[in-house]
Amino acid sequence: MMKKSFTFKDRVRIYDTDAQGVVHYAGYYRFFTDGTENLLKSLLGKGYPLKGNTWLVVVESKAKYMRPSRMGDLLSVRIDPELISEKAIRFNFNIYNGAKHICTGYIIQVSIDKNRWVAVDLPREIRRKLDRA
Amino acid sequence: MMKKSFTFKDRVRIYDTDAQGVVHYAGYYRFFTDGTENLLKSLLGKGYPLKGNTWLVVVESKAKYMRPSRMGDLLSVRIDPELISEKAIRFNFNIYNGAKHICTGYIIQVSIDKNRWVAVDLPREIRRKLDRA
Amino acid sequence: MMKKSFTFKDRVRIYDTDAQGVVHYAGYYRFFTDGTENLLKSLLGKGYPLKGNTWLVVVESKAKYMRPSRMGDLLSVRIDPELISEKAIRFNFNIYNGAKHICTGYIIQVSIDKNRWVAVDLPREIRRKLDRA
Amino acid sequence: MMKKSFTFKDRVRIYDTDAQGVVHYAGYYRFFTDGTENLLKSLLGKGYPLKGNTWLVVVESKAKYMRPSRMGDLLSVRIDPELISEKAIRFNFNIYNGAKHICTGYIIQVSIDKNRWVAVDLPREIRRKLDRA
Repeated sequence: MMKKSFTFKDRVRIYDTDAQGVVHYAGYYRFFTDGTENLLKSLLGKGYPLKGNTWLVVVESKAKYMRPSRMGDLLSVRIDPELISEKAIRFNFNIYNGAKHICTGYIIQVSIDKNRWVAVDLPREIRRKLDRA
Repeated sequence: MMKKSFTFKDRVRIYDTDAQGVVHYAGYYRFFTDGTENLLKSLLGKGYPLKGNTWLVVVESKAKYMRPSRMGDLLSVRIDPELISEKAIRFNFNIYNGAKHICTGYIIQVSIDKNRWVAVDLPREIRRKLDRA
Repeated sequence: MMKKSFTFKDRVRIYDTDAQGVVHYAGYYRFFTDGTENLLKSLLGKGYPLKGNTWLVVVESKAKYMRPSRMGDLLSVRIDPELISEKAIRFNFNIYNGAKHICTGYIIQVSIDKNRWVAVDLPREIRRKLDRA
Repeated sequence: MMKKSFTFKDRVRIYDTDAQGVVHYAGYYRFFTDGTENLLKSLLGKGYPLKGNTWLVVVESKAKYMRPSRMGDLLSVRIDPELISEKAIRFNFNIYNGAKHICTGYIIQVSIDKNRWVAVDLPREIRRKLDRA
């Protein structure tokens, strides 16, 4: 499986920050969430949420914060998606502020049947595209 | 119609603040939302959301910010509910930091049938209790 | 004073929504905040925050919600800035989901000296550009 | 080192949820943040932030989500603090919805000198109380 990374840029907004003057730790998950949605949209040519009864739900999230970033900073968010089972995708994130590597982490999303709230195989189209990605 | 005010206290958390070192303007709506839920729970003896197909949805929100507040401040939130029609409640808010009046505002909530997303009369129990309140 | 409106587009993200399936009322203020920052950046050719000791702080916010919007909707946010005194700007907002007018509101921001936390005249450059805007 | 756990209860609010009808994954970090602040306040008899030039900053966060929770659920949040160096505390979290274990995770906070933004030893009082905790 080859991996292809996907990158987008976004600016730190005042609501991402807290009284310490830097991005609040949980605020980086906004960039993770946007990254996941942007990637799926780019891969599938249509927006999340997935159609039908299939939803992606987050079962794990992690982030390490190496350096602070501040309001107005233009961040570069690199996403490396990884199919870790027939049912789960791990989205790996690395965030840069210019040349500085400021945050690394991931979220794992599992495909569920939203009516029964049980794990199901990911739609074939997504698995195929992520295998090729 | 007599009015009875309802008050609760809550502390400013770091995620309520932004890089200006004070509570973010939209952060005060967290206190408004909590106040509405606390009041309904207190009036009805059970938690929001309303049962059945009836939801309350916000159709208007407003706040004026007279003074800043900071992380760790213990705020006092006074709520004066007002039945403005058979279908709508206006929740008036005044927030104090000790003796200082720091914020005033309101949200208007309308009762809807969640399946048809159209306004319907508020449940009789709520109207009755707010009339007496 | 002629007014010139400024428009940007943004997509509703999952974190903008709540369990009612639509954008949370306070979530629209994210679009208001982004609009203000985008407009100032466009007018001034540089990012907010203002340099030096001058900050803009929000003293009033209001929104009316005419129709709901949902995850994935591409919203069009129109901003009409209005200089209401030497110290204050009112940013008027109208949000559209395609042809549907879903939200209208404003925020008022006042220029302060951040060290003394008192109102001061807006930087001349901003007043001049908003007068022409 | 004996460990003493600290527990508090809080209710899921509408703004914690998203359009999937359950608490948004990043929303659990609100409970982690509140837990840390509540614990420090309980240990030290005074509120966070720490006085003087010492701040606690988050350098790592992680959460696993085993089961969903919904608006109105009363969650029980258990915190086990752990001094992992002279400069860092790991706050371990386990969240329960009644008897159901729904979330486990941690945040690591490091003590810094806020003016130089470099790690420094935790205040002796905190180390002493956490050692005994």
